Amino acid sequence: MVNQDQIAVNALRMLGVDMISRAKSGHPGITLGAAPIAYTLFEKVMQFNPADPAWFNRDRFVLSAGYGSALLYALLHLNEFQLSLDDLKAFRQLGSKTPGHPETGWTPGVDASTGPLGQGIGMAVGMAMAERHLAALYNRPGYSLIDHHTYALVGDGDLMEGVSQEAINLAGNYQLGKLIVLHDANHISLDGPLSDASCENQAQRFCAAGWDYLEVEAGDTNLLGIEQAIKKAQTTAKPTLIAVQTTLGYGSPLAGDHRVHGAPLNTTDREALAKFLDWPGQPFEIPATVRQTFAEAVAKKQASYEKWQHLFAKYQRRFPQAARELTQATLAINGVQSNYQPGEWVATRQASAENLQQVASANPQFWGGAADLASSNKTKLTTGGHFTAATPQGKNVSFGVREFGMATALNGINLHGGGRAFGSTFLVFSDYFRAAVRLAALMKLPTIFIGSHDSIAVGEDGPTHEPVEQLASFRAMPNLDVIRPADANETAAAWRMMAKTKHRPSLLVTSRQALPVLNETIEAPIERGGYILAEAKKQIPDGILLAAGSEVHLALAAKRELMKDNIDVRVVSMPCQNRFDEQPLAYREQILPSQIENRVAIEMGASQAWDKYVGLKGKILGVDRFGLSGDGTELTKAYGFTIEKIVATVRELP
Amino acid sequence: MVNQDQIAVNALRMLGVDMISRAKSGHPGITLGAAPIAYTLFEKVMQFNPADPAWFNRDRFVLSAGYGSALLYALLHLNEFQLSLDDLKAFRQLGSKTPGHPETGWTPGVDASTGPLGQGIGMAVGMAMAERHLAALYNRPGYSLIDHHTYALVGDGDLMEGVSQEAINLAGNYQLGKLIVLHDANHISLDGPLSDASCENQAQRFCAAGWDYLEVEAGDTNLLGIEQAIKKAQTTAKPTLIAVQTTLGYGSPLAGDHRVHGAPLNTTDREALAKFLDWPGQPFEIPATVRQTFAEAVAKKQASYEKWQHLFAKYQRRFPQAARELTQATLAINGVQSNYQPGEWVATRQASAENLQQVASANPQFWGGAADLASSNKTKLTTGGHFTAATPQGKNVSFGVREFGMATALNGINLHGGGRAFGSTFLVFSDYFRAAVRLAALMKLPTIFIGSHDSIAVGEDGPTHEPVEQLASFRAMPNLDVIRPADANETAAAWRMMAKTKHRPSLLVTSRQALPVLNETIEAPIERGGYILAEAKKQIPDGILLAAGSEVHLALAAKRELMKDNIDVRVVSMPCQNRFDEQPLAYREQILPSQIENRVAIEMGASQAWDKYVGLKGKILGVDRFGLSGDGTELTKAYGFTIEKIVATVRELP
Repeated sequence: MVNQDQIAVNALRMLGVDMISRAKSGHPGITLGAAPIAYTLFEKVMQFNPADPAWFNRDRFVLSAGYGSALLYALLHLNEFQLSLDDLKAFRQLGSKTPGHPETGWTPGVDASTGPLGQGIGMAVGMAMAERHLAALYNRPGYSLIDHHTYALVGDGDLMEGVSQEAINLAGNYQLGKLIVLHDANHISLDGPLSDASCENQAQRFCAAGWDYLEVEAGDTNLLGIEQAIKKAQTTAKPTLIAVQTTLGYGSPLAGDHRVHGAPLNTTDREALAKFLDWPGQPFEIPATVRQTFAEAVAKKQASYEKWQHLFAKYQRRFPQAARELTQATLAINGVQSNYQPGEWVATRQASAENLQQVASANPQFWGGAADLASSNKTKLTTGGHFTAATPQGKNVSFGVREFGMATALNGINLHGGGRAFGSTFLVFSDYFRAAVRLAALMKLPTIFIGSHDSIAVGEDGPTHEPVEQLASFRAMPNLDVIRPADANETAAAWRMMAKTKHRPSLLVTSRQALPVLNETIEAPIERGGYILAEAKKQIPDGILLAAGSEVHLALAAKRELMKDNIDVRVVSMPCQNRFDEQPLAYREQILPSQIENRVAIEMGASQAWDKYVGLKGKILGVDRFGLSGDGTELTKAYGFTIEKIVATVRELP
Repeated sequence: MVNQDQIAVNALRMLGVDMISRAKSGHPGITLGAAPIAYTLFEKVMQFNPADPAWFNRDRFVLSAGYGSALLYALLHLNEFQLSLDDLKAFRQLGSKTPGHPETGWTPGVDASTGPLGQGIGMAVGMAMAERHLAALYNRPGYSLIDHHTYALVGDGDLMEGVSQEAINLAGNYQLGKLIVLHDANHISLDGPLSDASCENQAQRFCAAGWDYLEVEAGDTNLLGIEQAIKKAQTTAKPTLIAVQTTLGYGSPLAGDHRVHGAPLNTTDREALAKFLDWPGQPFEIPATVRQTFAEAVAKKQASYEKWQHLFAKYQRRFPQAARELTQATLAINGVQSNYQPGEWVATRQASAENLQQVASANPQFWGGAADLASSNKTKLTTGGHFTAATPQGKNVSFGVREFGMATALNGINLHGGGRAFGSTFLVFSDYFRAAVRLAALMKLPTIFIGSHDSIAVGEDGPTHEPVEQLASFRAMPNLDVIRPADANETAAAWRMMAKTKHRPSLLVTSRQALPVLNETIEAPIERGGYILAEAKKQIPDGILLAAGSEVHLALAAKRELMKDNIDVRVVSMPCQNRFDEQPLAYREQILPSQIENRVAIEMGASQAWDKYVGLKGKILGVDRFGLSGDGTELTKAYGFTIEKIVATVRELP
């Protein structure tokens, strides 16, 4: 091994540790332990261009062990990404380019936001799925446009998370041979030795899931071993886990002790480390020879980048439509519309199914699947076939009963770019993938999540299958569109809106039961979140009924009933609260004038979501207890979702 | 094999299928496929007493594949539990004893509510942990009081869920030899053949996790094979997975087809099935010989039940204190108090740590652990040692980075009874175990969940580690106490309340940062949810400040500041919103009089949770965007959580 490499690794170690000490916060353990893995990957293996960090065919890298952020930033800096030494010195400070955990879209060179364990490997699986799928769809003879590897660095914690199991099963089943996961195997977890919590045989586990498994001994110094293992992994048809035996906090007096995981080294320990690594300089001092080592590695990558750019330019000329599909930020919406007539009854999950096909027809790069509920969610694409190891061009992904793994993979697909992915399950099981929706929202990623069977109207399957609090709980999440359309018209409008959304995920919530298609929704301005569905005759209405989803038609019927008694109310449909809340005050005031305090909100879900609109003097017909098992129609009646009850509630207002 | 057994199995099949047909809803596939497993377990293996379904030392059974409810109900009926033929005929009807998925506490003989996949096996692991732990703690020479097996029946879907991986790793690591899981291996999932979604080698997977693996061929008829496998599994020190090869929808024309999973058989198919099984009778007609078969099996179990009752009576006399601990429904609270003085600063996670020790000291049956964050959550018990395979009496469980698996195990421990369990992680990672909190709430189980690091004040770790919407989202969940104490006094009060809570889970939310101990909280009536912390001087206050947790002391300081300008406000501390909402109107009106509309709520979390208290005319200082990475104090200031900002906000009110 060339000594310069070892020195460069030590530079990473010291730089990372010094960043952490200066910040008085961070994780030296992995910085010292995993530096050889990170270095080998970036300098000896991966293709990228620091001047164009979004290069479409770059190798992807996910630091699933997100607490290793200092290591990653040090690496990006030395690889000449737009991250200065001053940025490193501002590690973990408010507004800096170097936040506590990696954030994609904020720090150049960071391919995924990580920190919540297990999700990084899931996103890497998604990226590798995207690579495989897009290559099958878009490469042409002589145009190997999409052809790169996906790497992830995981810690013991990542591999304990259940979502990692879901992810590795997906990768194994799809034989994602270009996915290579490096395991920083230091056998220490935060609370102590890993053996306190685990006796798992990872080799057996990964082989069981259809992976290859390689091990590198003495990973603290064995750079060549790491490189050889990665190169071997590149040759096989299966995804590969490479377990690199490392020492947490290598070189520091606390090496191998769980206390070095999450607290800065003190001055004495820093000194001892520098001595051990034979590191002469001051903090943040980088020897010119080290800069030279990295610069040479980066320079070598330039040729493949330029070759690809040349290839892509030719591809664009030869296949302009395909090139457009691969590069457009949003989805086309031509043909996305409801073909149902007012008065027909159709479940919004069914209406959504047709819009889904329309989107797929207009956008060959659109694909996705379900967590083993495609037939219930109505999310199977009628054309496009199945995505399998043998047919990677297929558009329907059978994610299995793996909601969370699915959601992380969808995020990975959308992070990869080039395609756009959706995934579905029952709304109630959105609880299983909630953490991935949050990460999508944080990453400003336009992942489309679909939750069908959206209320107690689910009926016979009972309370475990009936969402109650899910709507409110997702509406509380920042940067997420929660869309609950009232009928087929609003559903089509929702799909058009989701297709055009660039920087946030959507959760489309659909009904199991049939709902009447309304006249009033035909031109639904859904991007405004809420709108006047049916106006009162009076200048100043006697009250306002607010509703979303399956309760909108009830509100409309209640309005008619109230009119018989000369109670003249406005009906507001509110399919997307957060979009409404983002409207200018004037619009909100127009829809919900402050002076009208007689307000009733109606939704089969937790009332918490409606408090802001009805105020102290209004009423909410919501569901603030769990559901029951029984006929859906009976159940909704028993819970008070009837025209009579709405009318009576309005009458009770002053 | 005795032919009577086969006939009895067919009786179960037909009864289940007829229940489903009558309900026009349900899952015939597993009913037909897994009947031999269920029958063998209940009649040939398990110890229970239908007249005393809560018998403490009964073998536990968890139908993790909860969609097999019809099979379970048929089984319970024939085993003479309090479930009549009319109850079976009312399958899935509103108010019946036979809801769509099994519900514990509602149907006699149902040990866990199931339906959300993967959680059943997790709860079974918890039950087996409880058995092992309590046996080590409470059995005495000659008094093998706690000595039973835990069985679970899982489907392919359960095993795809990531939580099952977390659960099997716990079971393997603790060598829960008395846990036996039967896998209804029919290789079909809802969307089609299992192979579309999985290529996993379960034998290798379970062995990797420290389990034994057995396989039974021809499980549709091979009752003896199933029985022998279970008996073999009972003899080993490791938990065992028994894969029983079955046919989904066995005997029906749709056998082996995914369409038989979730839709009733039509009349023709029902006829064909009856013919195949040589079943002569009408729906719900049960041959006397079949009743006889079950009655004999049940009768045989009586002796062990009576023997145990006798043993327990003696135990109670000899070890009255131990017997009390094992049987009391709530926890003792003697000594549970804050020892901090007003004016001291202490993080509520630290204050909680001391209360946790106090509860543990007063209650030997109290135990729990953390998802690899014990040192950060401050939830390690200082006495009691570690729960390991070698020291099952230990009270600290290292759950590893397995939040969801931990939560399901906690539920299992509390379902088991005899002990009471808590578990902790960062509040932000409560997203990972949310589905288990929901199930605890549904089951009315007093599981104690602890989420520390409760706001953006987490600081440097950044937005992935900073909860924002979690408080609102859990407050929207029915039957859950979300408790966010303001200081050490309210934290101690919270622990006393949680100790006394019988029928709902609690989520205790604690701060990372130090908070001042207040004078005003010393007698905090926390069970009322909210109370007047500091009263205005005026009869009718000029306004009300509402706050919870780390913002309460800010509200108090703002009140003093406002008083300098003769703005005389009341401060309400609201540590537990749902408890407040449950108070009589008169109390709520006393705390928050309708006439006072000048209200400001202050909490570093999604404002949605406070809308109901401030109304249209009040203001909320909340956090409706994600956090940032930086110094916690700087960050909270940047987000507007300062006395000045509160004062200014009050001034803006009319």
